[in-house]
Amino acid sequence: MDALADSPERLSSEGQNIVTETELTLKDRYASVRTLSVQLIDGLSDADCTVQSMPDASPAKWHLAHTSWFFEEFVLCGALGQSDRFDPNFAYLFNSYYDAVGDRHTRAERGLLTRPTLHTILDYRADVDARMMSILETVSRETELFELITLGLHHEQQHQELLLTDILHLFSKNPLKPVFSESSRDRSRSAAPLSWSEFEDPGIVTIGHRGDGFAFDCEGPAHEVLLRPFALANRTVTNGEWMQFMDAGGYETPRDWLSDGWACVQDQGWTAPLYWEKTEAGWCSMTLQGWQPVDPDEPVRHVSHYEADAFASWAADNLDGCEGARLPLESEWEYAAKDQPVGGNVLNRTSLRPQVPADVPLSGLFGDVWEWTASPFTPYPGFRPAKGAVGEYNGKFMSGQRVLRGGSCVTPPGHIRATYRNFFHPDKRWQFSGLRLARDL
Amino acid sequence: MDALADSPERLSSEGQNIVTETELTLKDRYASVRTLSVQLIDGLSDADCTVQSMPDASPAKWHLAHTSWFFEEFVLCGALGQSDRFDPNFAYLFNSYYDAVGDRHTRAERGLLTRPTLHTILDYRADVDARMMSILETVSRETELFELITLGLHHEQQHQELLLTDILHLFSKNPLKPVFSESSRDRSRSAAPLSWSEFEDPGIVTIGHRGDGFAFDCEGPAHEVLLRPFALANRTVTNGEWMQFMDAGGYETPRDWLSDGWACVQDQGWTAPLYWEKTEAGWCSMTLQGWQPVDPDEPVRHVSHYEADAFASWAADNLDGCEGARLPLESEWEYAAKDQPVGGNVLNRTSLRPQVPADVPLSGLFGDVWEWTASPFTPYPGFRPAKGAVGEYNGKFMSGQRVLRGGSCVTPPGHIRATYRNFFHPDKRWQFSGLRLARDL
Amino acid sequence: MDALADSPERLSSEGQNIVTETELTLKDRYASVRTLSVQLIDGLSDADCTVQSMPDASPAKWHLAHTSWFFEEFVLCGALGQSDRFDPNFAYLFNSYYDAVGDRHTRAERGLLTRPTLHTILDYRADVDARMMSILETVSRETELFELITLGLHHEQQHQELLLTDILHLFSKNPLKPVFSESSRDRSRSAAPLSWSEFEDPGIVTIGHRGDGFAFDCEGPAHEVLLRPFALANRTVTNGEWMQFMDAGGYETPRDWLSDGWACVQDQGWTAPLYWEKTEAGWCSMTLQGWQPVDPDEPVRHVSHYEADAFASWAADNLDGCEGARLPLESEWEYAAKDQPVGGNVLNRTSLRPQVPADVPLSGLFGDVWEWTASPFTPYPGFRPAKGAVGEYNGKFMSGQRVLRGGSCVTPPGHIRATYRNFFHPDKRWQFSGLRLARDL
Amino acid sequence: MDALADSPERLSSEGQNIVTETELTLKDRYASVRTLSVQLIDGLSDADCTVQSMPDASPAKWHLAHTSWFFEEFVLCGALGQSDRFDPNFAYLFNSYYDAVGDRHTRAERGLLTRPTLHTILDYRADVDARMMSILETVSRETELFELITLGLHHEQQHQELLLTDILHLFSKNPLKPVFSESSRDRSRSAAPLSWSEFEDPGIVTIGHRGDGFAFDCEGPAHEVLLRPFALANRTVTNGEWMQFMDAGGYETPRDWLSDGWACVQDQGWTAPLYWEKTEAGWCSMTLQGWQPVDPDEPVRHVSHYEADAFASWAADNLDGCEGARLPLESEWEYAAKDQPVGGNVLNRTSLRPQVPADVPLSGLFGDVWEWTASPFTPYPGFRPAKGAVGEYNGKFMSGQRVLRGGSCVTPPGHIRATYRNFFHPDKRWQFSGLRLARDL
Repeated sequence: MDALADSPERLSSEGQNIVTETELTLKDRYASVRTLSVQLIDGLSDADCTVQSMPDASPAKWHLAHTSWFFEEFVLCGALGQSDRFDPNFAYLFNSYYDAVGDRHTRAERGLLTRPTLHTILDYRADVDARMMSILETVSRETELFELITLGLHHEQQHQELLLTDILHLFSKNPLKPVFSESSRDRSRSAAPLSWSEFEDPGIVTIGHRGDGFAFDCEGPAHEVLLRPFALANRTVTNGEWMQFMDAGGYETPRDWLSDGWACVQDQGWTAPLYWEKTEAGWCSMTLQGWQPVDPDEPVRHVSHYEADAFASWAADNLDGCEGARLPLESEWEYAAKDQPVGGNVLNRTSLRPQVPADVPLSGLFGDVWEWTASPFTPYPGFRPAKGAVGEYNGKFMSGQRVLRGGSCVTPPGHIRATYRNFFHPDKRWQFSGLRLARDL
Repeated sequence: MDALADSPERLSSEGQNIVTETELTLKDRYASVRTLSVQLIDGLSDADCTVQSMPDASPAKWHLAHTSWFFEEFVLCGALGQSDRFDPNFAYLFNSYYDAVGDRHTRAERGLLTRPTLHTILDYRADVDARMMSILETVSRETELFELITLGLHHEQQHQELLLTDILHLFSKNPLKPVFSESSRDRSRSAAPLSWSEFEDPGIVTIGHRGDGFAFDCEGPAHEVLLRPFALANRTVTNGEWMQFMDAGGYETPRDWLSDGWACVQDQGWTAPLYWEKTEAGWCSMTLQGWQPVDPDEPVRHVSHYEADAFASWAADNLDGCEGARLPLESEWEYAAKDQPVGGNVLNRTSLRPQVPADVPLSGLFGDVWEWTASPFTPYPGFRPAKGAVGEYNGKFMSGQRVLRGGSCVTPPGHIRATYRNFFHPDKRWQFSGLRLARDL
Repeated sequence: MDALADSPERLSSEGQNIVTETELTLKDRYASVRTLSVQLIDGLSDADCTVQSMPDASPAKWHLAHTSWFFEEFVLCGALGQSDRFDPNFAYLFNSYYDAVGDRHTRAERGLLTRPTLHTILDYRADVDARMMSILETVSRETELFELITLGLHHEQQHQELLLTDILHLFSKNPLKPVFSESSRDRSRSAAPLSWSEFEDPGIVTIGHRGDGFAFDCEGPAHEVLLRPFALANRTVTNGEWMQFMDAGGYETPRDWLSDGWACVQDQGWTAPLYWEKTEAGWCSMTLQGWQPVDPDEPVRHVSHYEADAFASWAADNLDGCEGARLPLESEWEYAAKDQPVGGNVLNRTSLRPQVPADVPLSGLFGDVWEWTASPFTPYPGFRPAKGAVGEYNGKFMSGQRVLRGGSCVTPPGHIRATYRNFFHPDKRWQFSGLRLARDL
Repeated sequence: MDALADSPERLSSEGQNIVTETELTLKDRYASVRTLSVQLIDGLSDADCTVQSMPDASPAKWHLAHTSWFFEEFVLCGALGQSDRFDPNFAYLFNSYYDAVGDRHTRAERGLLTRPTLHTILDYRADVDARMMSILETVSRETELFELITLGLHHEQQHQELLLTDILHLFSKNPLKPVFSESSRDRSRSAAPLSWSEFEDPGIVTIGHRGDGFAFDCEGPAHEVLLRPFALANRTVTNGEWMQFMDAGGYETPRDWLSDGWACVQDQGWTAPLYWEKTEAGWCSMTLQGWQPVDPDEPVRHVSHYEADAFASWAADNLDGCEGARLPLESEWEYAAKDQPVGGNVLNRTSLRPQVPADVPLSGLFGDVWEWTASPFTPYPGFRPAKGAVGEYNGKFMSGQRVLRGGSCVTPPGHIRATYRNFFHPDKRWQFSGLRLARDL
């Protein structure tokens, strides 16, 4: 079932042979991205792809259909003016949140759609793909249509990651603890000791996407910010460090928690990261590889912003070498990351361990876990959402959410960059989300 | 998909060839009942059989597994002491409510079990059937084991009906309005005019099951009750009569409603029976045959006890020929039904219309719609639940529910009798539930 | 604050000097009932009388106003056609549930009405009383108006009891555990040993109110029922017996519980009767006399129907001398009670202990605790609610509730009789509700 | 009841006689603030001061008690080591959210505390005041104790404003629409036309409290931020402009709303600012002066951040002269406000109209309505909460809330300054909250 392993964009763990997306033709990229989505569900049943395990999650079948609807709605019917649709009902069923293009099916009831079947959805994908492939060669770079299709592909990559996080959530609710991917995990190396990478005099720096290559609207406009001297930890926080926090009563006292966070701990009964359970053999957790012991050397994941913030507060006073620790600002993170190779260890899917030597100053920035920052998701100065339905993409979510940076082990290759702004509400933890500490100099 | 049509116990609409269950061997009955369950899902997908559309409903797959678990748990492992189980996890997954036999999976999360797959559940059924068939010939009548297996078969028949009501609910939530059964409906005959069958001097009568043939525990002990003179309508209330109630503002004023019923109307926003929707072409409703116009001559169905009670109150003052109407007591219903043929028109599944001539005094008692009575579901005098898990069958539900009598068009043939007590909470309406009026003489 | 102690209808504990209500003039009865209501709040503050501690409860001020509104609305304005009202807003504010007389203030927001003040409400009462007193002498017995006013007085007596139960609930939510009544409690006598009063051949008996003296509509029509031989316990279940049930794990296993009851235990976290708390000095409970140790010889109170039913099931198998115990039917209770003195020990408010000698066959039927029966609250044969608003009195509550019989230590004197049917939903326990066991002979 | 009118710090509408707080002795300031709190409840009943109308609000009695508990807990018992308390229970009852000082009474049940009575709370205040007054003269400036007492006084001023907003909410729930303050309102002058105050080259500016005079911890540290050229509207948005938004379907389409905001509109059924109702005579609203017509020339108030943000989005495209409008950043607001007189028209409580001439570039910054900014409430660079319970003051609320600036017509005089950061969740609207538009240059 380990579909990602065969992705055409898959790279060696050294990352040296990266073929950037801009070197591929649009048609090749389209084929590559669309193929991967279907590869991801290899081994899943019709029912696996249909059930919705919570309102935040969507069925795999829905992800497959919705990403196809994007091309049918905005490209084929919208930009190209085609009037034929595979099935007119699909506009209602598979619109996600674009209020501008009409009514849509209730989000919390996506899992009730046993029809259309998975088989029909795969037919739908094939139909959309055939129609798209027939026009892709005619699309010139630097046209609006080119931009729109590119947006559709990045949109689909976002849903590839969500498909995986949602399947993990579904399988976690099954007492049989099904295995999604059989790949073995390398447990031979230890996490590097914590050290700090210092940025002594950043001053006025430019943050945000500057216009070459694709970026989502919320990554711009590029703009100047004033940064103070700061340091960033060389690696993300590990499960072992998280266990120290737990052993110190981290989930039992409000002392280090934001007020809303502590309310959440109590309402939800949190005592550990999502998917962790204490067994006779120690902490285990549900993973895409099934039920596994928690590896103390791996980055902690499936923690909420509330937990990440509480951990940082606790670490500031209690964790050796972490005096004054806090979460980084997204601008600090981006400044530190902008000269780092995007490859990193993202691509070795058999392990989540940071595999770089201890003397590398910053490791795992891209592709281990999404790193919660201290920054609320707000518009950059001068940001205006695009007009029309596509403009509903990011701007309307700029309330109550926090930015995460860097990408996770289930982020599709080629989808991540230093300016990328992911965002979730601070109580969410079904994503592969962890944290990296920062501090003032 | 019309699986019931091929049931070996299927009878002509005249009902003259009924082979009663007691004439069949236990083995034949076992084979017949177990086969029908699997026939019911013919044409359903893995996903159709997995999704749970509300906490009251269960997935078809769960019904198929749970009824098999009954035989494995209580007969093979319990009574016969076998220690092998098809899969030890299934005891946890497919126990419904028998607290005495251990923990069980949360009811509201039955729909998250995409594994075991439908395929595995069918293997499970085959395995249980093979083990059961090998012992059935050795089971003598009038033994406890015989009784237990007979109970298991009637239990499975109950779940056959629930499987159908639950699939209808699931399909009703799908904007595509899928068709479960293609059978055509006969719309050629009209409902008989309403008339009254009078019982002028019943006095002390015996009610309840007397001990020959199978009955559920709650149908006994047989006991005497004192009945007053009463009359029972010759047929159930029709959709046409229900539309009169609606047109008279039935859902808009609290006047005829029980207090809890009116609260429910307002909370749930009820304006018509479940599954009805007003379209440009008039009232339509979701059925097992898909989206259909409401036929004014058919019995109204998918109404709650609250609605049935409000209708009777309204009819008492407003419906021609129905002065003083009320719901019947279950004892009145049973007294009136006990000499009626159980066949009735239960078996003509192509129509729900009462097909008997207008001069038949009582029609449709069995097999059109479950008929709400005025009687709360309480124990008969002297009732004691059986000891042990099987004793959890009915007694513990004797609170807050109302009795329904008669069986519906989706009740399996051979499963109904005059003493049968069905019961649901008064706000439930996803069953094929309607009503028949009564009144004092 | 112990207002009830001074009630003019107060009787000796022997009960021999009962002046029945029919011997008093209507004017005397009016004065007596109306005065008692105001005496009840002696010692309560404006705030005590304004706050609503849960949606089921109402503020004392609301009780005082609503009972006055009854006379203004139905007698002065309705029957007598007066057009002046003390304040036209009060019709909206103090209507309880009479849908027929117009809109009303949301029940759950009764506690937000800091205005009108208590002072204004007392003025309102005085105004209504003056207007009523001026017409009472002209009202002849056996007129509709006489019946209506009599209904209003019994209605007010119901609210007197509710006022006390609601104040107790309010004070129970206050960590300071305020004392409502200072009266001392006699703890000198022990509960009588449990014994059974047998009714060997009741047969067809007449149940229900026969028409002399006041009764609520739901107490009639009188009608015949067929009773089987039964026995009734000589006294209600005590706190000491309840502790045995608790010690035996009564609240920890579903075995003896109705299904809805067990769900309630788990949802609400019940581990003891309402108001009980385990302290270092043993079980204590909140009472109108403040925080008090639980007296094992007193009748258990503040238990729900679910708890009463579970206790009876447990006792049937586990409590010495109680084999086969169950809750009585309301018809059994009424049959047994009809020749008993209504006085009983209702009037000794300094103690709730059954004070009758052990050899009295049936004690405490009236006035210790309301006794849950096994009977759902349903209409008697031939019952029809009165037309108009007053007809909303009882009939519309005949769903999902259980009958209690006998009256409690806070039921006003002169308000109770053998045919009286009190009713509450089975999960309610803020009333002074207990139970008496019955069993088949 | 217009208690604020008599405040010793009350100033003329010209604002020229301001006696700054630092010129008063601590004892004088203590007396002044504490006296005002009690003056505020002049005319309120015991019940008015006890009831809690929603979990966000607190009873007036609780505000009076809690602010006294602050001095008893942190000053008398904490800093001065006194062991006597007026009532030991009060530490539990009147702690608000300081987890470090022990358990506390459930916030949502504050309104159930009918005891202690208002009378007792006033005694408590007098007792605390007597003990405080006896030590105040000995407290030297620039000591920790001086700072702590000063914090207590500012804390009390915050609760003075909350007391008023909470009373307004309570009275708004009463159909009688009680009047809190009888003062007449001047409706003679019109709002100034909208114009823009431009800040063309702010560059790197210092924001935050610099250390002279009191400020809450979250107002510092002072730090540099990089500002871009911007403009700020000369006045806040008026009710008249809000009506244009409403008439344009502002509450009926998701187009201009944040996603969470639109969900809130639909869940809560918002169609206008809080307290507004459409009557035959036009829009009216509940105010501290009772039920009043909405004045189109007054600043809009009782709008949430979601509404303010949607209005700005709408105005950017639709309101004359407002192209590109948005909410200001808090840093922009502070930069623009820092040279403005704090007086403004804050003190003319008979009208909320902006009374300054049309040619004043910036009016109403202080004291009309709190102005929602675009800035999430996050820590300033280098912010660390103080250690101990007092450190729980602001830091733990830095999640999910937005900053408001400027103070409202019910903010106590002497409590506001340019660096002041108020904060609420974006759905809250029971505060006197409005907005002022900004835009890029």
